Amino acid sequence: MARCDALGGRRFSDHPDYLFRPYLGPAHQAALDQVRTWMHEAGMTTRIDAAGNLVGRYGEGLKTLLVASHIDSVRDAGRYDGPLGVMLGIEMVAALHAARRKLPFAVEVYAFGDEEGSRFPAPMLCSRAVAGGLDAAALDVTDAQGVTLSQALEANGLDIARFLQARRDPADLLGYVEAHIEQGPVLEAEDLALGVVTAIAAQIRYAVRLTGVAGHAGTNAMALRKDALAGAAEMMLAIERITGGGPPDLVGTVGRIAALPGAPNVVPGEVNFTIDLRAGTAEVLSAAETAVVFELVAIAERRGLGLMLDKAHELPPSPCDPALRTLLGRAVEAAAVPAYDIVSGAGHDAMIFSPITPSAMLFIRCKGGISHNPLESVDPADAGLALRALLNFVDQLEAAHD
Amino acid sequence: MARCDALGGRRFSDHPDYLFRPYLGPAHQAALDQVRTWMHEAGMTTRIDAAGNLVGRYGEGLKTLLVASHIDSVRDAGRYDGPLGVMLGIEMVAALHAARRKLPFAVEVYAFGDEEGSRFPAPMLCSRAVAGGLDAAALDVTDAQGVTLSQALEANGLDIARFLQARRDPADLLGYVEAHIEQGPVLEAEDLALGVVTAIAAQIRYAVRLTGVAGHAGTNAMALRKDALAGAAEMMLAIERITGGGPPDLVGTVGRIAALPGAPNVVPGEVNFTIDLRAGTAEVLSAAETAVVFELVAIAERRGLGLMLDKAHELPPSPCDPALRTLLGRAVEAAAVPAYDIVSGAGHDAMIFSPITPSAMLFIRCKGGISHNPLESVDPADAGLALRALLNFVDQLEAAHD
Repeated sequence: MARCDALGGRRFSDHPDYLFRPYLGPAHQAALDQVRTWMHEAGMTTRIDAAGNLVGRYGEGLKTLLVASHIDSVRDAGRYDGPLGVMLGIEMVAALHAARRKLPFAVEVYAFGDEEGSRFPAPMLCSRAVAGGLDAAALDVTDAQGVTLSQALEANGLDIARFLQARRDPADLLGYVEAHIEQGPVLEAEDLALGVVTAIAAQIRYAVRLTGVAGHAGTNAMALRKDALAGAAEMMLAIERITGGGPPDLVGTVGRIAALPGAPNVVPGEVNFTIDLRAGTAEVLSAAETAVVFELVAIAERRGLGLMLDKAHELPPSPCDPALRTLLGRAVEAAAVPAYDIVSGAGHDAMIFSPITPSAMLFIRCKGGISHNPLESVDPADAGLALRALLNFVDQLEAAHD
Repeated sequence: MARCDALGGRRFSDHPDYLFRPYLGPAHQAALDQVRTWMHEAGMTTRIDAAGNLVGRYGEGLKTLLVASHIDSVRDAGRYDGPLGVMLGIEMVAALHAARRKLPFAVEVYAFGDEEGSRFPAPMLCSRAVAGGLDAAALDVTDAQGVTLSQALEANGLDIARFLQARRDPADLLGYVEAHIEQGPVLEAEDLALGVVTAIAAQIRYAVRLTGVAGHAGTNAMALRKDALAGAAEMMLAIERITGGGPPDLVGTVGRIAALPGAPNVVPGEVNFTIDLRAGTAEVLSAAETAVVFELVAIAERRGLGLMLDKAHELPPSPCDPALRTLLGRAVEAAAVPAYDIVSGAGHDAMIFSPITPSAMLFIRCKGGISHNPLESVDPADAGLALRALLNFVDQLEAAHD
């Protein structure tokens, strides 16, 4: 916890007023140096891979368990989103090292250089390099200052021509485990320190355009209006009702809305809004999507509004590996915490690895569910339980290894 | 109708691509010259008053009936909003003149220079000058190009020091009548060509700020959210329901809305929106306001949202003169059209005169209720009925004069 707090300090931020540690910036370089020192102290050998990830290795074996998270941050970030998972990996190894444990597999702790995509428009760039899910075209990105990824890598002594060599051969991997703050309020509401992630949610995003008839706010009787914003209001409540009536992992959000022409004395003739739907399984998501689309069409028809639905984005669910998840659940219970299954509504590096190696993810309660915000807060006791669960998980893996 | 169409042409617009005739611009000057010619042809003497209004006078008498509307326009305007009322006044006088009618009162047709406020931020500037509702401070306005009203007047041979001398002594006035397109869909829905305005609506405007808790769209379970936009949606439907359940002249509009932070994947933590409420009487408006505020407070409380209501604007109703309105109703019936009472939801020059002289207003059906738009359209037969009603109105006034 103290190390997360230290990484949240001025020395590890590229902005004087708040924490901002984008990929390949000076603060990222400073953080790499610091975390490398901690990895050495924990008994690891270290390297920087071709994508700029810091990797600490402990022990030997035919197979390697990856314990990973990221050390980049969003702008005006909290201190735990990413770094806590890396620190827990290091603490786990430190404990193994202190006990002189010899495992039948190697452990490598990855501190990914980019997960947030806060510098280049390419989130999870570094885990995708390691998992092998990138092609060369994905590297043709430029930051807001016009610096290309190639130039940024070169400034850090790296070479874009070698970037994809960060890839690990899945045959060498035993599995992937990531600890991360929940970034939501569910564990707090359940009064639980830890959650075992069952899947990273499937996601669908729509752009909705609703057209009615703009008109004078004074002269258009209510019964004769085709008010696009009143129609959008009814649709937003339908989305809330449909998703609220489903399982807890089903969520629906209208995050962006614009009403045109946008004058206080004009009935809106057009409204554009977004819908973000997520669920732990494709079945639940698809049923909710069908219900939402059905309702939107019915509302538009009843109100005489034009409706354009544009499916902007669709991501399948990334289920965690059932066997590994069972082991992680036992490890959590062995830490005297009920094994609570939770769907991750947010994307994580773990979803990049689940197609190539058995992957599991441990969520840690955070205060008020607040994240991407300097108010991010984690109870040190919860972090202690997470460390205990990770060590138990290694025990479980060792026992299952033969 | 042909003259309205002519005034909608390129020669009478300050923009090459659409109709835009702001106060004191070159197009306004050209329109004054043209309308003055038509006034002369109708048998009137003309003058430009100190505020730049064109005034045509017919007949003599101790008292004067004002027949008025405006000849300025909004940007990208239609051809009938304003000019149709002026043309009807001229046609009315032309008919009186052709019949060599001598009335016991004078008639003056006013073509107001500014009603829309599309150049200076001072709508109804010219009728307020005539009605005496202005003080010198109201003249301290500047257009978007930095030209002051004083400079614009000087360029048109007028002097701001004399502006307020456009005022008419109420003792000299018999009354005020204005014909205007409805700018709404009510008459069309009622299948009626004309409406007798009972009042110009009272109006209340609120700025609403709603605060919840912003959060990740994936990680915040529906039951635990404080979504400011979902709350706003419920409020918008409540406003629609309350105003839709009242008399037809009660209207409620949310015309502007902004959700923050405004990202598709973030639950909105703050929403700002406007409410515009109007009704023909202060009683109906006040009851609706109470019901809306009650509902908003209840919704905010139930959802755990912060609510700030800022009453930004409040206008009392401007009732038309009951006696004059009765005469106008009879005049409409004498034109073989039912006398249909209608509240004007929009402001008009007539509301400026109602405190100083008996005022009445005649609405003319327009296609689809569309106005402030080049698609503005009026059936020539309806304009003919309006002319007939105005002539009947003069007959009624004459009969009532002794």
